[in-house]
Amino acid sequence: MARTTGTVRIVGTGLLGTSVGLGLTPQGVDVVLDDASPSALALAFDYGAGRHARADDDVALVVVAVPPDRTAAVVAAELAAHPRALVTDVASVKGPILDELAATETDTARYIGSHPMAGRERSGPIAARADLFVGRPWVLSAHADGRAGAAEVVEALALDLGAVPVHLAADRHDAAVAVVSHAPQLVASLLAARLIDASYETVGLVGQGMRDVTRIAGSEPAMWVQILRANAAHVAPVLTDLRDDLDAVLQALDAPDAAGSPRALADALAAGNSGVARIPGKHGVDLKLTGLTVLIDDTPGQLARLLTEIGDLGVNLEDLRLEHSPGAPIGIVEVQVAPEAASPLVDDLTRLGWRVAG
Amino acid sequence: MARTTGTVRIVGTGLLGTSVGLGLTPQGVDVVLDDASPSALALAFDYGAGRHARADDDVALVVVAVPPDRTAAVVAAELAAHPRALVTDVASVKGPILDELAATETDTARYIGSHPMAGRERSGPIAARADLFVGRPWVLSAHADGRAGAAEVVEALALDLGAVPVHLAADRHDAAVAVVSHAPQLVASLLAARLIDASYETVGLVGQGMRDVTRIAGSEPAMWVQILRANAAHVAPVLTDLRDDLDAVLQALDAPDAAGSPRALADALAAGNSGVARIPGKHGVDLKLTGLTVLIDDTPGQLARLLTEIGDLGVNLEDLRLEHSPGAPIGIVEVQVAPEAASPLVDDLTRLGWRVAG
Repeated sequence: MARTTGTVRIVGTGLLGTSVGLGLTPQGVDVVLDDASPSALALAFDYGAGRHARADDDVALVVVAVPPDRTAAVVAAELAAHPRALVTDVASVKGPILDELAATETDTARYIGSHPMAGRERSGPIAARADLFVGRPWVLSAHADGRAGAAEVVEALALDLGAVPVHLAADRHDAAVAVVSHAPQLVASLLAARLIDASYETVGLVGQGMRDVTRIAGSEPAMWVQILRANAAHVAPVLTDLRDDLDAVLQALDAPDAAGSPRALADALAAGNSGVARIPGKHGVDLKLTGLTVLIDDTPGQLARLLTEIGDLGVNLEDLRLEHSPGAPIGIVEVQVAPEAASPLVDDLTRLGWRVAG
Repeated sequence: MARTTGTVRIVGTGLLGTSVGLGLTPQGVDVVLDDASPSALALAFDYGAGRHARADDDVALVVVAVPPDRTAAVVAAELAAHPRALVTDVASVKGPILDELAATETDTARYIGSHPMAGRERSGPIAARADLFVGRPWVLSAHADGRAGAAEVVEALALDLGAVPVHLAADRHDAAVAVVSHAPQLVASLLAARLIDASYETVGLVGQGMRDVTRIAGSEPAMWVQILRANAAHVAPVLTDLRDDLDAVLQALDAPDAAGSPRALADALAAGNSGVARIPGKHGVDLKLTGLTVLIDDTPGQLARLLTEIGDLGVNLEDLRLEHSPGAPIGIVEVQVAPEAASPLVDDLTRLGWRVAG
């Protein structure tokens, strides 16, 4: 039974808008879809994300899911077109939307911004999924001029989609995502660009470390240019600090034997240790996990057999990663389990004939 | 049957040295261990990585596995102490070792440098594993003064340990690892350091992207200071180029509405796309894979059941990743399969009752 009541109108049937529709429709929510692109809209209808708009629609909630640089204008138009509806948006930056609405003297009593922190490297309605938001934070940015009760409506929407509501004012949201999302995107892109002119032999030595650091560098530039321009005021100081630290590292690398150079490098590396230690565990708490490595043959069913036996032993996998060896017919499975489960599991798996290392 | 013949003497029983011993001993190779630290040496004996040295040892190959800043001195000492043995090392930089040996007028005919590209975030003999090198590149850096046949001896060692031998001269090796290993290490550390003073709410919004970019920032500073100082001449130009690109991005962020700023941001992001596209697939070729996402309950046996059913369908998983939703009792399984297997697999899993998205 959905918490969301009344008709939900989704404007913009890209990845996020279509996913909202796909998540709500099976729960019996009446979803209306609209998009400036007839082909994107037709696809979203085909996928079953909602129905066509009608003149007599009594819209309770509008979800604006258009690109960031068009969001404020569409929010204003929807507020005017649906005078009883609450309007939210899903853009990755929240302050600039409020600023744009203020600049056009839009009455924002019925507007509350939000940001579901879900995405994929692919975009468009074809990439949409009903479960896109499951378990992800959905930030709600209430503002001083907003109507009482607005946050509860969007919170219900987030909960219906399996997301975890997080309340954060626009400016604090924008500062936070500059650190955890926008700066990492640019850093990954800048590092990945070093490979453009790299020799074939260099690229051949890329291992898991470089793969991990550069994975998000595959993201779509057009959307990211909009996000970065909109949040430039928060991203710039983060990257300026990083640039200053990088300059200190470069000074040390230019004279590695000079007094102070070893210390400068050690400080940069130790600061990285301290920063990464602040990232919470995957379960949202600082649960320490223990990793095991198991070698398996790279054939169908091997991994399943391993995990069946782990399940039969009553051990819950907290995390799992399968890595193939380049050119080798072998898979390396890294599993993370609760610390107290690790040692008995090593014994049990070894007894069962697995090649396992603690 | 091991390819390696004669007695192998391992000097330095840390992670790499002990792992070499653990990998060779079960194959019947005679392994002698030595370490300046009696406690590290005692641990390596306890783990079964080799035996005590004797005065009458006829050593065929010495593997020097000590920290980078002591490698050249130990190589020189071992060449003198074992006048018929071939000597190799496993340090992450190769040119500076040769330079140091030349500076001390060491005869390097019986020396050939090598670099097994394997490691862990943990160190010491306790972290050692017999399978540490399986499927990883093992770079052999032959040099002009080296004896003929030296590369074949170390290649046999690498193959016995399951590694993939790669021939690369010292300077080219050092240039390559500056790009794929040393620069990423510093970049990850510099980004992770942004979290030190981040608010609790900011850290709470860290998602998979930030986790991936900063994972290797957890590495041990002391060892990395040595590596970075030794390879400073190659790392500095890579990071200087990155700093120049970062300055262009910062200029655009400081004036996001100025002419040229959107283009500068788009160029940086597109360059990241181009760079990451050069990374070969996990199987060493540019195999395109298709990803599926399946939601599972976070209970023992669920993942095993899923993978059993995938195995029963005859589909080989090319990659797999399990992600927990913070605070939600649900797991998100991302599997990668060959493109032709994806669509039937979605149908089959859906029919079997799994919640799956393409």
